[in-house]
Amino acid sequence: MDEFGLIRTYFSADTDAEGVVLGVGDDAALLQPTPGHLLVTCVDTLVAGVHFPEDAPPEAIGHKALAVNLSDLAAMGARPRWFQLALTLPEVNEAWLADFSHGLRRLAAEHRVALVGGDTTRGPLTLTVQAMGEVAPDKALRRTGARAGDLLYATGTLGDAALGLDLWQRGVRGHEPAAPADFLIGRLHRPTARVSAGLAAAGLARAAIDISDGLLADLGHLLETGEGLGAELQAECLPLSAAYRVHCNDPLPGAAALTGGDDYELLFVVAQEQEAAFLNALQDDPAGCTRIGRITPDSEITLRRDGQTEVLTRQGYMHFK
Amino acid sequence: MDEFGLIRTYFSADTDAEGVVLGVGDDAALLQPTPGHLLVTCVDTLVAGVHFPEDAPPEAIGHKALAVNLSDLAAMGARPRWFQLALTLPEVNEAWLADFSHGLRRLAAEHRVALVGGDTTRGPLTLTVQAMGEVAPDKALRRTGARAGDLLYATGTLGDAALGLDLWQRGVRGHEPAAPADFLIGRLHRPTARVSAGLAAAGLARAAIDISDGLLADLGHLLETGEGLGAELQAECLPLSAAYRVHCNDPLPGAAALTGGDDYELLFVVAQEQEAAFLNALQDDPAGCTRIGRITPDSEITLRRDGQTEVLTRQGYMHFK
Repeated sequence: MDEFGLIRTYFSADTDAEGVVLGVGDDAALLQPTPGHLLVTCVDTLVAGVHFPEDAPPEAIGHKALAVNLSDLAAMGARPRWFQLALTLPEVNEAWLADFSHGLRRLAAEHRVALVGGDTTRGPLTLTVQAMGEVAPDKALRRTGARAGDLLYATGTLGDAALGLDLWQRGVRGHEPAAPADFLIGRLHRPTARVSAGLAAAGLARAAIDISDGLLADLGHLLETGEGLGAELQAECLPLSAAYRVHCNDPLPGAAALTGGDDYELLFVVAQEQEAAFLNALQDDPAGCTRIGRITPDSEITLRRDGQTEVLTRQGYMHFK
Repeated sequence: MDEFGLIRTYFSADTDAEGVVLGVGDDAALLQPTPGHLLVTCVDTLVAGVHFPEDAPPEAIGHKALAVNLSDLAAMGARPRWFQLALTLPEVNEAWLADFSHGLRRLAAEHRVALVGGDTTRGPLTLTVQAMGEVAPDKALRRTGARAGDLLYATGTLGDAALGLDLWQRGVRGHEPAAPADFLIGRLHRPTARVSAGLAAAGLARAAIDISDGLLADLGHLLETGEGLGAELQAECLPLSAAYRVHCNDPLPGAAALTGGDDYELLFVVAQEQEAAFLNALQDDPAGCTRIGRITPDSEITLRRDGQTEVLTRQGYMHFK
């Protein structure tokens, strides 16, 4: 099957999608932006063997390629609208493509985000998704804006994907393992983009980022405001899944929760005077939202645990203060 | 140098770019679309060894990665505004990156198109550029719309890049060769996106496409209207560069001009009653514009040459009628 056959079969235009004047099949797509809104655009590449295991289920790869981009839009408080897919494949494997396309399409349908274009090329397996969303100008969530005293909130649970990767690399597969392993591997392969949480927090949080590189690394980005800010995290408050606790046999968060990547939860900075409104907006969101600490004026990230304070480096190495 | 260092050094935000509310460095970019315009978006991937020779000058690779996308926008009649770069690199080679960035930036500055985001990843050398432009809704140039009797116009000259690739693959390099070889290799490595020609033709041509896969293949796309259309090309009229004629030692176009890819000229379908207005709009464009044939109602592509008519397949194989 040639490039055009591929496109027609697996990546045909989303028909009737809102705001799509012309979709897949021309030199470019024609889209109708919403008047008065900003266009929000991001791009993320997944390389086989680097961003997902070579033997990950193709349906999961399709899901993840879109999810990581929807997560970026969510971190801006944007409503996702359209995306493009640049797919580099070593060979045309129709079974692989059918599964890949299924995972991608299912997530796209869930978020009503339309595939409007792309490119298919021959080469080492690499996927680049570019996603577009929209946000009202006064509601966009940026990384900058944190001030000392602001509160830190995280959606969902942390560290699951890192544990899932460890399990997968140790050969754990399918439905043989206990349920916690299934859950953790699922969190690695099929991250949930916290779109509704980002929309709910838009205009209410002071800053936001998605946790793709690990809590400490991404928190570090929120602190890069030039004001010498730091943060104090409460170990007892970090949200852990039941599977995490069972797997680690430890009620407190370890390295996976602090530094593990690929969770794609959202990390919000919330002004104290906005906390009630923020919580009210987020209260029904399926992601949940947990207060994990606060912004401090002293340029260190510290972890309060058992009444002691550890200083954390942004790479996560710990030593006692 | 880590990913963030790379981004800061070579792919920092274009400052003061029009319509950029927030550029490189957050989860996504925030852009201000022009009211009343459509957003035009495209994405193209270049894989090393497939879309450019592994040993192509990095500055040329940077140029080409953006140029092929600007060409897609030009084929829609759009004004280019912003782009994103997803760069997958096997290693961090700063000299390579500096040259690559230079080629990319120079072309971006020429067209006043702003780099607003991207992603850098580790893996086999692959470049995906996603470009955004704008067009008034009634001026967008699509592939569809050709009718029997319409005229075919091409910008620039055809077949140069295919000859350049042949020379490059035979080891011709640098400034030793005669000037024609230099010119042809330059056309391969540094294609000119016909942005001004696309803008001039917007609202005047009936349909357009950029010639990336070769004249016959891309003409074939313009004929896919479901109306069973064909085209008649005039061999004597196909625009050839002086270098092409010298290199081929033949005044008439051969396979390179008919089927060679990578020229990135524009192919326009123009209604007869619009021809004068079209030519008037294009007359000062540096690309030039040549009438090469017309749309016919009989579903074949034919070539008139020396008073005879050849039937061409869309892959370019010829036999006499």
